[in-house]
Amino acid sequence: MSASARSCLTVVLAAGEGTRMRSTTPKVLHQAAGRSLLAHVLATARAAGADALAVVVGPDREDVAAEAAKVAPGASVFVQEQRRGTAHAVLAAREALRQGFDDVLVVYGDTPLVRTETLERLRAPLAHGASVVVLGFEAEDPTGYGRLISRGESLVAIREEKDASDEERAIKLSNAGIIAISGAHALDLLDRIGDDNAKREFYLTDIVEVAVMSGLAVAAEAAPEAEVQGVNTRAQLAAVEAAFQRRLRAAAMDEGATLIAPETVFFSHDTVLGPDVTVEPNVVFGPGVVVAEGAVIHAFSHLDGAYVGPGVSVGPFARLRPGTQLAAGARVGNFVEIKNAEVGEGAKVNHLAYVGDASVGPRANLGAGTITCNYDGFAKHRTTIGAGVFIGTNSSLVAPVTIGEGAYVGTGSVVTDDVPADGLAIARARQVTKPGRAARLKAALKAAKARD
Amino acid sequence: MSASARSCLTVVLAAGEGTRMRSTTPKVLHQAAGRSLLAHVLATARAAGADALAVVVGPDREDVAAEAAKVAPGASVFVQEQRRGTAHAVLAAREALRQGFDDVLVVYGDTPLVRTETLERLRAPLAHGASVVVLGFEAEDPTGYGRLISRGESLVAIREEKDASDEERAIKLSNAGIIAISGAHALDLLDRIGDDNAKREFYLTDIVEVAVMSGLAVAAEAAPEAEVQGVNTRAQLAAVEAAFQRRLRAAAMDEGATLIAPETVFFSHDTVLGPDVTVEPNVVFGPGVVVAEGAVIHAFSHLDGAYVGPGVSVGPFARLRPGTQLAAGARVGNFVEIKNAEVGEGAKVNHLAYVGDASVGPRANLGAGTITCNYDGFAKHRTTIGAGVFIGTNSSLVAPVTIGEGAYVGTGSVVTDDVPADGLAIARARQVTKPGRAARLKAALKAAKARD
Amino acid sequence: MSASARSCLTVVLAAGEGTRMRSTTPKVLHQAAGRSLLAHVLATARAAGADALAVVVGPDREDVAAEAAKVAPGASVFVQEQRRGTAHAVLAAREALRQGFDDVLVVYGDTPLVRTETLERLRAPLAHGASVVVLGFEAEDPTGYGRLISRGESLVAIREEKDASDEERAIKLSNAGIIAISGAHALDLLDRIGDDNAKREFYLTDIVEVAVMSGLAVAAEAAPEAEVQGVNTRAQLAAVEAAFQRRLRAAAMDEGATLIAPETVFFSHDTVLGPDVTVEPNVVFGPGVVVAEGAVIHAFSHLDGAYVGPGVSVGPFARLRPGTQLAAGARVGNFVEIKNAEVGEGAKVNHLAYVGDASVGPRANLGAGTITCNYDGFAKHRTTIGAGVFIGTNSSLVAPVTIGEGAYVGTGSVVTDDVPADGLAIARARQVTKPGRAARLKAALKAAKARD
Repeated sequence: MSASARSCLTVVLAAGEGTRMRSTTPKVLHQAAGRSLLAHVLATARAAGADALAVVVGPDREDVAAEAAKVAPGASVFVQEQRRGTAHAVLAAREALRQGFDDVLVVYGDTPLVRTETLERLRAPLAHGASVVVLGFEAEDPTGYGRLISRGESLVAIREEKDASDEERAIKLSNAGIIAISGAHALDLLDRIGDDNAKREFYLTDIVEVAVMSGLAVAAEAAPEAEVQGVNTRAQLAAVEAAFQRRLRAAAMDEGATLIAPETVFFSHDTVLGPDVTVEPNVVFGPGVVVAEGAVIHAFSHLDGAYVGPGVSVGPFARLRPGTQLAAGARVGNFVEIKNAEVGEGAKVNHLAYVGDASVGPRANLGAGTITCNYDGFAKHRTTIGAGVFIGTNSSLVAPVTIGEGAYVGTGSVVTDDVPADGLAIARARQVTKPGRAARLKAALKAAKARD
Repeated sequence: MSASARSCLTVVLAAGEGTRMRSTTPKVLHQAAGRSLLAHVLATARAAGADALAVVVGPDREDVAAEAAKVAPGASVFVQEQRRGTAHAVLAAREALRQGFDDVLVVYGDTPLVRTETLERLRAPLAHGASVVVLGFEAEDPTGYGRLISRGESLVAIREEKDASDEERAIKLSNAGIIAISGAHALDLLDRIGDDNAKREFYLTDIVEVAVMSGLAVAAEAAPEAEVQGVNTRAQLAAVEAAFQRRLRAAAMDEGATLIAPETVFFSHDTVLGPDVTVEPNVVFGPGVVVAEGAVIHAFSHLDGAYVGPGVSVGPFARLRPGTQLAAGARVGNFVEIKNAEVGEGAKVNHLAYVGDASVGPRANLGAGTITCNYDGFAKHRTTIGAGVFIGTNSSLVAPVTIGEGAYVGTGSVVTDDVPADGLAIARARQVTKPGRAARLKAALKAAKARD
Repeated sequence: MSASARSCLTVVLAAGEGTRMRSTTPKVLHQAAGRSLLAHVLATARAAGADALAVVVGPDREDVAAEAAKVAPGASVFVQEQRRGTAHAVLAAREALRQGFDDVLVVYGDTPLVRTETLERLRAPLAHGASVVVLGFEAEDPTGYGRLISRGESLVAIREEKDASDEERAIKLSNAGIIAISGAHALDLLDRIGDDNAKREFYLTDIVEVAVMSGLAVAAEAAPEAEVQGVNTRAQLAAVEAAFQRRLRAAAMDEGATLIAPETVFFSHDTVLGPDVTVEPNVVFGPGVVVAEGAVIHAFSHLDGAYVGPGVSVGPFARLRPGTQLAAGARVGNFVEIKNAEVGEGAKVNHLAYVGDASVGPRANLGAGTITCNYDGFAKHRTTIGAGVFIGTNSSLVAPVTIGEGAYVGTGSVVTDDVPADGLAIARARQVTKPGRAARLKAALKAAKARD
């Protein structure tokens, strides 16, 4: 039976409090690259072939359970009522372990950089007779880590620093904690782990000793140290974020996007950039952004939940919020916010504007200072702007309102009523000019200031 | 007598011109992390227990003297009339040296990264019989530095590169210039330093030789090389700024703030972030900012002299200027500037607005394009907006003006008169719509363009 | 004859497709530091003394030919009809090679970091009897590169990895491909290069063997590896951009500008900063920017084709577009866009404004929300604002329009007619205040929402 044909249960340990984070948010719900650490781990587990997911959470952690349910519907959630060690945590999922999966994989909710291929590699030996496979990493400085002691192809022990001989201490391959277990032996091996140690906890690591004593085959696989970085502090969270960003930037460039200064572009885990997209320095992508071929995202832009069509120009200083859809060749310029709005082909919103809950027709031109008044203090309303419409600067469009195709709105107008196609709407006072009056006004203002 | 019980005079040498900076501003007045290099050094000196501060400035450097007086009231300023070397500079403060302090510490106005603990460590041996203590650093490449030559616990000489034997040149512990002197011997030792050298200057370094010849105990302490980085060029100034930023970012994360991309966040020396504050990429903090628990500072925000209350959301693309006070749960969104204004609990200023010299009541909602007209060309006036007020988009509030609690201002209004509580104010022209007129207008504009 | 007196033809090979870029734009037209790679190479060639430039492009590459013509008027363009190797490419410029230049230099359009001095150094041996000079670099990892095999001062061969002995493989000096050839021998040597190899191509590298066999003197010069970095992928393009930025930042600081966080400032190849200019973090310079003494560019600013006068303050969050001219002491503040406009001495455009196709007189003050309506949907028109004018907030100036010196425009006005000097213009509706009406309005809006 090939590895890929074997059924797999992945147990995700997500009960850690993370006190060193100094946060009221549990550790696994902190975010990197636009989603929680837990969501990263669950996505990787799925991609690596998990048929079932068991998430072990701490007591009263409905928030973690809810996140698991949201990002991995169908995952089972188990509560570890007491903190009695990692093996104890895995056994909280006893009900899932009983269901007879071929493979059981144990991963950690706070270790999100592990790659899909690494988990696949870790499971592979189970298909060839191994009962337990431990993930190790070549530690640059292994001080403090348990060392993986092998004989030939077999892992014979995980030796803690304090119990290690000098020769063993020289070994750099260290225990990453992630383990694959043959489903046929998993429950039996886990149940045989004892708590005969200083803290009286049940350590998953001890499964190696139990398996070796039973004469079962135990193996080790290695991953780069960077991949098994866990998150216990905000500094480590920042390091994990940086690692994700490096991966995402390299992938974007490989796919044919130009990042002028890749180190200043921040992606979400799901950002999609088409070929020949250019991203200038200092751009932030929130979740759910797709940028089509040939679009240019200028400096200082912030995109979130937006679709940017082919050849579109965004920014500098543009903000696209969720629900933004920019059709081919549209232009969104500086100090412009778009939210929940479709902007048609070749339409222009070039300066200082807010377009929210709206649809803007093809080739429409919204002048600087155009604002859709989508909120009346109670409800949101839509603005519909037809093809080829011209909106004069500093105009307010009071939704719900429709500006028909080809219509023209005069500068500085407050549009409260619909404008028919090809109609002209003006809503402003006539200019009154008083020669010489500025001098008098200024004198008065100056005098007033002097009196203050 | 313990070190902390000993009285201390700290002499700050701040007379360097810094010609390699190519600046009209004297070197010690250049800034890092939001204050001058001199201010950093004076603050560290104070924190390390200076009872008196003597700042030695060059001739005609009223600007340096003024900065010293501003950031360290009570500091004495002495003028070094001629540039005759570092010992000569210290002696410019002869009057202070005569006052009988237990310890005299000599530090440099262009070396701002030295830590408080390092200065405390440097003074400590004075309490145990040392007469002179020299700060050294392990230079990665000591070429060109004076080497600290020790015998047992004693420092016996500072050897210049050109006078050093091969063996001495192999020593990496180099002279950082910072020196602690027993107050009892300071004046005598300094006066005995000669100018028998090529440049005919009086070098503070020579105090070691003078003390050793007198049979006094001389010791050395070491600091990391990065801590004694001086500023002689703009590139070194940038390096010092970067070092301060690394310290401030690490401290913020240790305290429990999430910095998504710490390398893109720029702090002031005095920025205060509460627990569970999140700072997105690309945020700049000027001096005097306090951010309370759970607030989120979104990308591309610039804060200066502002208080951000608990749970507040700022940005992206927000600018908070001095005097901004945002109460709990307030929201300041994109392309919004706030200056000298209090914004009440839960109030919203979400888009494209300028709120200056104003107070905004709780739960008020200022629409996009709201602008307080606080300046009439001569004086600044205040705008008062009551609780629960709704300001329609593109409105101008001409100060001084008061909008009473619960009032409603129509879109596009210019409000010049006070609005009573629960009142409705509208100041705009009625919309005139002319069917079919846009087509004619466009034809005319097109024809005009063709004529040009 | 000294090197500088010798005439020089520089052949720029620019026919590479760059398929690994995954781009529809040819490789040499991708940009770094604000201009194409080809433009960088042509500028360096000119600076290194090229009397004539021959650019070899691929078939149907009018775009590359056009760029060459634009950035190096007078350059000859030759088409390499078939891809038969680098020597074949050089021979596409046969007509230019026939013209009897003293020196022929062959450089690459995708290798833009080579310095002028390096090219000068490469040509120098030609003045002293060498017939061919090859540029090498000390490769950190030379695997895969051709090694430069020297005997004494002479280069005797370029050995490909696969043909190299162990001893030769230990050599780190590798072939960078850039070659200088004595004009007297160039055509003869190039014509004698054969295609007796696996790909049946004519390799320029083989010129060394041909020259050595003819008993001509061949030499090598070395450059740092970073300087000969070629661009074949987007990641390499980003690396080249980063290298240019490091050079430009260091140069700016050497010249006396303060860059608070140099790693966040992006220059164009031609940015000019005067002494004592301060650039805050996160500033992007497009081509054609000059900043005069003492100006401050605040964080999050984007400048392109703009002149910034002495002591001017720009930003934060300012965008200066081409044609912007800011006179001494002017201030352009947050969320302000200036385009094709002169702003006079001490004039202020401090917040949320768009000034396009305009001239603003000295000491004029444009309030927040001021917008010049320069575009009517068909043509652009100019706005002229006189000295000392005060424009109230949220005003629209409908161009073409002139506001005379000392005039005053009331808040929220739409100015369509010229205002005479010292005149007062107001164009707004009178405020109507309805006591108690807000409560009724809110009740109605609330009810409407409930019905939805």
